[in-house]
Amino acid sequence: MNDQKNNNNTSRPLDALGKALNSQVLIKLKGGKEFRGALQSFDMHMNLVINDAEELKDGESVRRLGVVLVRGDNIVYISPE
Amino acid sequence: MNDQKNNNNTSRPLDALGKALNSQVLIKLKGGKEFRGALQSFDMHMNLVINDAEELKDGESVRRLGVVLVRGDNIVYISPE
Amino acid sequence: MNDQKNNNNTSRPLDALGKALNSQVLIKLKGGKEFRGALQSFDMHMNLVINDAEELKDGESVRRLGVVLVRGDNIVYISPE
Amino acid sequence: MNDQKNNNNTSRPLDALGKALNSQVLIKLKGGKEFRGALQSFDMHMNLVINDAEELKDGESVRRLGVVLVRGDNIVYISPE
Amino acid sequence: MNDQKNNNNTSRPLDALGKALNSQVLIKLKGGKEFRGALQSFDMHMNLVINDAEELKDGESVRRLGVVLVRGDNIVYISPE
Amino acid sequence: MNDQKNNNNTSRPLDALGKALNSQVLIKLKGGKEFRGALQSFDMHMNLVINDAEELKDGESVRRLGVVLVRGDNIVYISPE
Amino acid sequence: MNDQKNNNNTSRPLDALGKALNSQVLIKLKGGKEFRGALQSFDMHMNLVINDAEELKDGESVRRLGVVLVRGDNIVYISPE
Repeated sequence: MNDQKNNNNTSRPLDALGKALNSQVLIKLKGGKEFRGALQSFDMHMNLVINDAEELKDGESVRRLGVVLVRGDNIVYISPE
Repeated sequence: MNDQKNNNNTSRPLDALGKALNSQVLIKLKGGKEFRGALQSFDMHMNLVINDAEELKDGESVRRLGVVLVRGDNIVYISPE
Repeated sequence: MNDQKNNNNTSRPLDALGKALNSQVLIKLKGGKEFRGALQSFDMHMNLVINDAEELKDGESVRRLGVVLVRGDNIVYISPE
Repeated sequence: MNDQKNNNNTSRPLDALGKALNSQVLIKLKGGKEFRGALQSFDMHMNLVINDAEELKDGESVRRLGVVLVRGDNIVYISPE
Repeated sequence: MNDQKNNNNTSRPLDALGKALNSQVLIKLKGGKEFRGALQSFDMHMNLVINDAEELKDGESVRRLGVVLVRGDNIVYISPE
Repeated sequence: MNDQKNNNNTSRPLDALGKALNSQVLIKLKGGKEFRGALQSFDMHMNLVINDAEELKDGESVRRLGVVLVRGDNIVYISPE
Repeated sequence: MNDQKNNNNTSRPLDALGKALNSQVLIKLKGGKEFRGALQSFDMHMNLVINDAEELKDGESVRRLGVVLVRGDNIVYISPE
């Protein structure tokens, strides 16, 4: 409701994820881990499924994962690339 | 309700974000990371979308991101510039 | 309800913030950061807007911010000055 | 409900705070900080207002605050003195 | 509901506290602190009131408190002695 | 609801605890502590009561407790033995 | 609701777990622990039951567990293998 009132002629933050579906995103996690890959789905908790995901630590690729479900509470930010 | 009673002739904290829409803001995150950029949207969890975002660490620019969705639970403070 | 029963002829904690509106407050955050400034608004999550805010670390001023929205979950205590 | 069933002829924990109103209490916070002062109010989140509060660290007085609102989620324990 | 189904002819965990009322308990907190004392009351958040409480750190008594209200979210385990 | 849809012809995770009642389980806690003992009861928060519990740290027995109530939010995993 | 609107012709993140039932998954936990094993069940909190589970630390096998219930709030990501 609060954001309804403040926000009613602007988009909401999670709409930015809707626009990024099937596109490449960068995901920064608490603790410094990062993922790059194609955003396949998300929910209101910011749980995400990423396809063709690359896990990075300090900018270095550490693992390739075909599909990965990231639990939303670990996320610091998400940026479409 | 509580803030209704205490606060009824003053604005509420998230109104400060409504006023800052499309303006430059500084965002301080837990762990010391900062973002500067234009506030595009927010919700009641303080999830934010920032445009033309610059990520800083210890005052130094570490990354430029066109659009970034910051998860609200990471935020310490937000200041319009 | 619980506090209703225990507390019914005393004020409630957030009433102390209502009395401090537009006055100078000291805010202590988790991690040791502090703010001093004029309390402009608050809500039931203890999200606060502070005007003419000074950020301190170990008692030293580290930054001046015209207006700052502090996310309530970072707060340890608030003291009217 | 659960505590209703287990607890119905005993008092509940927050009743101990009701009895301590206007009396001296010791408050231990996560991270080791302590407060001593007179309990003026509390709510069901254990948010507390303390009058004539003394902040201690490792048993040493580090600050005197006329009135302080302590956010309940920082509290480890509260003991009437 | 879930535990209703799984658990319906067994007792529930908090029932163990109901049986321990007025008896001596050992309470282990996050961070390593311990309390020993008589359990006077508890609620569904595991907030506890302990009488004649002894605070221990690494097995050593560090403080005696007549009555102490321990906030449930600090608790690792509780054991009747 | 979500798991209803995804999961409707499979069991649910807490059913694994129902099957382990009165049997020996290994419980791993955040911070590395472990318990071994007989699972007497559990609830939907994963609060557990363990009988004849042995507390271990780095694989070494550090304490024996007749009955112990473990607060669910400390648990990393539970494994029937 | 939010994800309803954004997501209505795409799958949701937890659907990825539904597809992985009875298959091999890699589970990364906060703190660096990992599990590999067959996903037997899950719920909306991401509590998981894994069969024939192998616990790894820094890529090394540290323990074999026949069945393990992992508490969802420890999970960073889950990847079908």
